[in-house]
Amino acid sequence: MLYTQIPTHRPNTPLLDSIDYPAQLRLLSIAQLKTLADELRLYLLYAAGQSGGHFGANLGVVELSIALHYCFNTPHDRLIWDVGHQAYAHKALTGRREALTSIRSQGGLAAFPAREESEYDTFGVGHSSTAISAALGMALASRYQQQQRDIIAVVGDGAMTAGMAFEAMNDAVAHQADILVILNDNDMSISCSTGGFAKHLAAIWQSGQLVSISETGEVGIFPHPEWDYTSRLHQAATDAADNLFKAIGFEYFGPFDGHDLKQLVYVLNAVKQRKGPRLIHVYTKKGKGFAPAEQDPIGYHAIAKVNLLTSPVTPSKKLKKYSDVFGDWLCDEARQSEQLLAITPAMCEGSGMVAFAKAFPERFFDVAIAEQHAVTLAAGMACEGVKPVVAIYSTFLQRGYDQLIHDVALQNLDVTFAIDRAGLVGEDGPTHAGAYDYAYMRTVPNIVIMAPKDENECRQMLHTAYVYPGPAAVRYPRGTGVGVEIHSELNALPIGQAEIVAEFGDSPLRISILAFGSRVYPAIDVARQLYEQHDVAVRVVNMRFVKPLDDKMLKQCAGDSHLIVTVEEHAVMAGAGSAVNEWLAEHLYTLPILNIGLPDSFLHQATHEQMLASVELDSAGIYKQVEKRLLMMQQEPAQFSLKV
Amino acid sequence: MLYTQIPTHRPNTPLLDSIDYPAQLRLLSIAQLKTLADELRLYLLYAAGQSGGHFGANLGVVELSIALHYCFNTPHDRLIWDVGHQAYAHKALTGRREALTSIRSQGGLAAFPAREESEYDTFGVGHSSTAISAALGMALASRYQQQQRDIIAVVGDGAMTAGMAFEAMNDAVAHQADILVILNDNDMSISCSTGGFAKHLAAIWQSGQLVSISETGEVGIFPHPEWDYTSRLHQAATDAADNLFKAIGFEYFGPFDGHDLKQLVYVLNAVKQRKGPRLIHVYTKKGKGFAPAEQDPIGYHAIAKVNLLTSPVTPSKKLKKYSDVFGDWLCDEARQSEQLLAITPAMCEGSGMVAFAKAFPERFFDVAIAEQHAVTLAAGMACEGVKPVVAIYSTFLQRGYDQLIHDVALQNLDVTFAIDRAGLVGEDGPTHAGAYDYAYMRTVPNIVIMAPKDENECRQMLHTAYVYPGPAAVRYPRGTGVGVEIHSELNALPIGQAEIVAEFGDSPLRISILAFGSRVYPAIDVARQLYEQHDVAVRVVNMRFVKPLDDKMLKQCAGDSHLIVTVEEHAVMAGAGSAVNEWLAEHLYTLPILNIGLPDSFLHQATHEQMLASVELDSAGIYKQVEKRLLMMQQEPAQFSLKV
Repeated sequence: MLYTQIPTHRPNTPLLDSIDYPAQLRLLSIAQLKTLADELRLYLLYAAGQSGGHFGANLGVVELSIALHYCFNTPHDRLIWDVGHQAYAHKALTGRREALTSIRSQGGLAAFPAREESEYDTFGVGHSSTAISAALGMALASRYQQQQRDIIAVVGDGAMTAGMAFEAMNDAVAHQADILVILNDNDMSISCSTGGFAKHLAAIWQSGQLVSISETGEVGIFPHPEWDYTSRLHQAATDAADNLFKAIGFEYFGPFDGHDLKQLVYVLNAVKQRKGPRLIHVYTKKGKGFAPAEQDPIGYHAIAKVNLLTSPVTPSKKLKKYSDVFGDWLCDEARQSEQLLAITPAMCEGSGMVAFAKAFPERFFDVAIAEQHAVTLAAGMACEGVKPVVAIYSTFLQRGYDQLIHDVALQNLDVTFAIDRAGLVGEDGPTHAGAYDYAYMRTVPNIVIMAPKDENECRQMLHTAYVYPGPAAVRYPRGTGVGVEIHSELNALPIGQAEIVAEFGDSPLRISILAFGSRVYPAIDVARQLYEQHDVAVRVVNMRFVKPLDDKMLKQCAGDSHLIVTVEEHAVMAGAGSAVNEWLAEHLYTLPILNIGLPDSFLHQATHEQMLASVELDSAGIYKQVEKRLLMMQQEPAQFSLKV
Repeated sequence: MLYTQIPTHRPNTPLLDSIDYPAQLRLLSIAQLKTLADELRLYLLYAAGQSGGHFGANLGVVELSIALHYCFNTPHDRLIWDVGHQAYAHKALTGRREALTSIRSQGGLAAFPAREESEYDTFGVGHSSTAISAALGMALASRYQQQQRDIIAVVGDGAMTAGMAFEAMNDAVAHQADILVILNDNDMSISCSTGGFAKHLAAIWQSGQLVSISETGEVGIFPHPEWDYTSRLHQAATDAADNLFKAIGFEYFGPFDGHDLKQLVYVLNAVKQRKGPRLIHVYTKKGKGFAPAEQDPIGYHAIAKVNLLTSPVTPSKKLKKYSDVFGDWLCDEARQSEQLLAITPAMCEGSGMVAFAKAFPERFFDVAIAEQHAVTLAAGMACEGVKPVVAIYSTFLQRGYDQLIHDVALQNLDVTFAIDRAGLVGEDGPTHAGAYDYAYMRTVPNIVIMAPKDENECRQMLHTAYVYPGPAAVRYPRGTGVGVEIHSELNALPIGQAEIVAEFGDSPLRISILAFGSRVYPAIDVARQLYEQHDVAVRVVNMRFVKPLDDKMLKQCAGDSHLIVTVEEHAVMAGAGSAVNEWLAEHLYTLPILNIGLPDSFLHQATHEQMLASVELDSAGIYKQVEKRLLMMQQEPAQFSLKV
């Protein structure tokens, strides 16, 4: 069934409604499974329209989700979805059908499988390429415990390029572990897949060879005359006779049509009877069954809520996304600097690099999902005197941390890191939060770290990082700027120089709020309120640099203030405020300090605003925290004595 | 030539002495190259005996190093040694022959290639598996700059299991980059190689097939009847017809005998004429040419200086290595807890796990060089209710950082991290320092972090981490304990509880030294001296826990002290002292603080003691820093006022 519209009302899905748990599913006939698939796909269209969120990948695995729960005894058998943005059908089939319309909302279902949400979610995911490692861990533990269970990891072709998937396959063979990997090949990661691996999969497909298995368990190689190979995006560069999975020591079966329920059920039942590391290669179509998504799988990777789709809000002022600020800067800088090369680990669209990739194809490097490699690739480039820019999300740079230290910072190489999605990221939840980058970067020598207060400063900081002749990072938030004018000219900021952005009042009792990045404008609101509500002078400093800090500015603030407040959208622990504390201690200042930032806990998904409010990091929350501290200090007035 | 002894006097090497740079080497005949190889091997034996250090791998690549510099126009052509512990021959041939006896010493040659040391060292290494990424970066930059040069990465078979090597190969094919990978297959990483990849290489070897190239550039597959295949450690599990490198899209040549200079020169010259991603597979023998090392390649991975070898010092008290403390604990804990499983990423010997692996083979998992996988494997195991222990060096955990956050901490899984080589590591230099683990771990929620003052506490903390039902880490230094008695019984410490280990004097002017890990005993020395030299009372606290901190102890110290000193063998930035600062600020204390730890710079190799002294982190240095602060405070007496 090919749908063309997203239903705005709950569709009629009688068979689906009768399935609350997979055990009920297992009583159906193959013909009924096909009806179920149609109903489930329709329901997913409806639910995604209500909730927004990941879309194409979920439509692509409707049949696969049904077949897996049909053939395996979940949750006793362990089913692990790699990345997990394709687990909506799985959630619908495992007791969470009606809750699916709340996915990604505060208090609703998580965007990804989560262990606390369901016993069917055997491993919490979000970042790619972890599933084979987790499956192997479960398999080895189960073997050790003499527990009989099947363990299945479903991994997209895009996720297979990340090295840890390869590490896990290598190790699975070492242990001859009983795991089954389903390679869900839709010829894409979020962008199009690139590299030798993608070409290899295309070559396997185009060879027209099928590795299948008889009911008695014999493995054979057959031609498969029915398939249409012309839809593949890549030309095969490799000889499909060399099968990578077989080379590494897996049993390989495939490629199969991942939308053919009958074939899937047959193959899963047959292959589950074998032991050791096995891989079934299925071909699925992202956006399957929904015509617009089949035609534009990148555009339909995720969608907004249907009411946003159907009644677009025209904001009074069009705010620019930070990723687009980056994208524009990248193009402008590239025009005036021939040395600029840009790298993305499979996030061309998300990082705002589409225009750059089109304008400068020979200077654009999408390295696939491979963060470790992305960082060291940049280091290698920098050795030859070009100036690489690595565009990467804060949460994914965690994957390239050793490379940042060992290959870039230690050699003091000229690499610019444009760190997107820093701070809280709203609906994607804790797996994608960029809450630790100040901490893990500032402890490393040689690196300059900046955070902009707004979109224009972001642009100027990117330029600053670019012209700085060593490693430098700019970290900016998900979402839009605040609406300031963006200057087309590029002016580098002096390294380590902060700016005073507000001064309220002239009371002898003074507070200095040292604000970082996204918290600068809220801090100005807070300062105004504090001044208005309390007899206190308040200064707000846009710190700009987490490393190096502005000595002169800190001396001024520490010298004339009774309370230093630091505020940042990052964990308090080891964060930017903590750097200020270190500076004050080193310079013998002993005044009261209030460090405001993210608490020491993982935050569940909600909107960005809800998340900020929940941890008192919006204007109201920051105000409340400072006011509370003021009251506490007034109860201990001795601490108010100015130093001589 | 097979040598049987390490020469204690400079051998006679007339041909080698005539080669200061590779350009001179290129004038020799093949016959002369063979003489050169013999002389170079003898000289390396002598030099390694003088300096100590990596051994077997260097003997194994004597011919390869000569052949590469002979066939390629270094340094214009870029030669990158992966890991770099096999680059001694390369250093000897590139202007550093006589300096080689000083390798790994303070002021001497670095243990690994380093860009600041020589233009022939094109990329600084130390951690494994970065070379293909770096080579690709250089190749893409050179292509963009229209520079003609050959770029060669020499990678061991052990390093190939790390995912980033695979990521880089995948990407090299995407760009059809002109890089040449030399797979230096000695059938080992530092331990024996494990997994599907090692089996695959064995299968290629055992197939007896040779992929070679004619002088006119034609590629052919030939049988190779001369080789002895029986020396391979592994049985082939895979069908060598499936060649992994060809599958991913590399041109593959090999396998060749890596000690046959004539063959190497022929093959390198032929293959360099081709374009695109190419791989030459050579088989070398670790320890080649030195009989004892050929027989025990693991034991001869690295050696001590020859004067230590020949005249062993009998210390009055035999001090136990921390890695052995860990190894003993692991065996003891495993005996009383059936749930314990242990994981190492290819560091069985270094981490002290040989006895465990022998006693509990079904509970020991060497996952090869694959840190990302190691951490997530543990997470998967923990999901099944067993209790995995991950033994890993601090510097290598940087490779599993995202997995620590995303797969372990976020899911609050019961994984114990035994973090070895934390702090400064002496001769291995900055690439192996464990200077950032407090910072990058403590910013992450849910994790307990401990550091022991001595070997007995290390044992008890490992037990504490193990019985704690969530993620917990113990970080301990390279080298030996201090000589305290180790209690065989295991007693868990109360989580987050520090201990006072010394109190000197009863002056109203009081200092509290909050010491972490290896700095506790030096802090006691410092406290005694301070008490004796100045009219001051000094308390020393063994903090034990970096996270969570001990509230009660901090309240006591902050309440009655005029100066808080924190001291740790970790970067000051974002370190354990910084955590104390945060606590004090949060609890409204405003007393002077002195944070002592590693400075914000990378430290060159020296002995551990020399390094500590150079940054004032030994007893004398800590004393000096505290005394200086005391004098400064006395100049600003207002800051001494006790709070009410």
